[in-house]
Amino acid sequence: MAEQGQDGRQHGRVALVGAGPGDPDLLTVKALRLIQSAQVVVYDRLVSREIMELIPASAERIYAGKALGHHHLVQDEINELLLTLARSGRDVVRLKGGDSFVFGRGSEEALHLARHGIHFEVVPGISAAAGCTSYGGIPLTHRGLATGVQFVPGHLREGKGLDLRWDKLADPDTTLVIYMGLQSLPETSAELIKAGLPCDTPAAAIENGTTPRQRRVIGTLADLPERTRAAGLQAPTLIVIGKVVSLAGELDWFMTEGGGS
Amino acid sequence: MAEQGQDGRQHGRVALVGAGPGDPDLLTVKALRLIQSAQVVVYDRLVSREIMELIPASAERIYAGKALGHHHLVQDEINELLLTLARSGRDVVRLKGGDSFVFGRGSEEALHLARHGIHFEVVPGISAAAGCTSYGGIPLTHRGLATGVQFVPGHLREGKGLDLRWDKLADPDTTLVIYMGLQSLPETSAELIKAGLPCDTPAAAIENGTTPRQRRVIGTLADLPERTRAAGLQAPTLIVIGKVVSLAGELDWFMTEGGGS
Repeated sequence: MAEQGQDGRQHGRVALVGAGPGDPDLLTVKALRLIQSAQVVVYDRLVSREIMELIPASAERIYAGKALGHHHLVQDEINELLLTLARSGRDVVRLKGGDSFVFGRGSEEALHLARHGIHFEVVPGISAAAGCTSYGGIPLTHRGLATGVQFVPGHLREGKGLDLRWDKLADPDTTLVIYMGLQSLPETSAELIKAGLPCDTPAAAIENGTTPRQRRVIGTLADLPERTRAAGLQAPTLIVIGKVVSLAGELDWFMTEGGGS
Repeated sequence: MAEQGQDGRQHGRVALVGAGPGDPDLLTVKALRLIQSAQVVVYDRLVSREIMELIPASAERIYAGKALGHHHLVQDEINELLLTLARSGRDVVRLKGGDSFVFGRGSEEALHLARHGIHFEVVPGISAAAGCTSYGGIPLTHRGLATGVQFVPGHLREGKGLDLRWDKLADPDTTLVIYMGLQSLPETSAELIKAGLPCDTPAAAIENGTTPRQRRVIGTLADLPERTRAAGLQAPTLIVIGKVVSLAGELDWFMTEGGGS
């Protein structure tokens, strides 16, 4: 619903909506309602095609997918776009894969709107770490195998390697989840082994998690890079490293049922 | 739908369903559908009253809330209960607050079912870390403030202190989320400061996150224990420590709108 802005004009509201990992059944009830009643949807590359089909034909769709290597500039443009759309009086759904507050840069967009007097709300989504592992038969925590969990980004910075504290990440009692970590997996594997994590630590890669296209590759910290290469995995792929991956055989309910291959 | 078990009888299926942090609007579409068509629901203490009201009157409700200090025994009993119910031919919804694979011990239940030939599925939920922070105006990651996030449990073991690696947790560039960490907050604060995390690191406590009863206390690593005591916070309360908490003022969309106090 449009609201009176600080400058007296009717402004739209912006909902920063997490679309979850892909399966439309994993949208929240609130996200589904907002998508189905949207006037304009600004969406990212990682929103699954099944979810895009839920947007009504009457809604305007604007693609805001970021080209790799051009994050900064494009993020500013997205911030401005959301502001302009809200000022035009329309209610905006800003739709991102996963959860917009977990590596989604949703907080940068929210801050920009807040600083310009636009009302926004945040609708959390099932993050890839939760969705892909649940459908991959891998619990993030399990008594005796992992007492905690860490999420880190695995995308390479422009021309640089990963900027991560390997000494803190190499903990055999914590599950390590790496978002967008396929390209950097050889470096990740080598650095974690150098920092003391055992070579035979179970590790998994889940491509297109929760969708009918899900593929899962299971191995060890040492051999996962080669296994993912051999299987030809592509982005989006989530990496999971830790003893909990040892349960992936017994807990594989989704692919057993033909949900993925 | 009941299925043929390995022993030839018709067994029910078990859905391990994450109920999310409290707001029924944050249930996934799949969770809502399963709850509304349930024959029997085995639920925990942390499932909000608003969500319990969605269970049809015709469904049997079984409380499996764990008494503190009796985790182990009762978990075995819950495992057996789910098995018995499924073997009686009924479809079972096992409903837990948050996400059953994130400190929910859902994987122990899933393993028990898998080892006895019962079909199960896992429906991830919005975990407290995502839900309570989104509604608390705190992003889990933000460029320049946090490159990653860690989740650890804060409940005290029987008669013992916390069994956490403070040296690995005391990272100023990572957001630290502590589940059920109110009671142990004085110890957590002291240990993190001893391990080198600055006293003035922003920190927050969120009680009953995402519900109309949400309360938020903002402070620093050093003074949050006293502030939460003064405010009289009770469980369930999520603790968040890290520079991202500095955005909580500007990004406070939920309580500004009267959703909480």
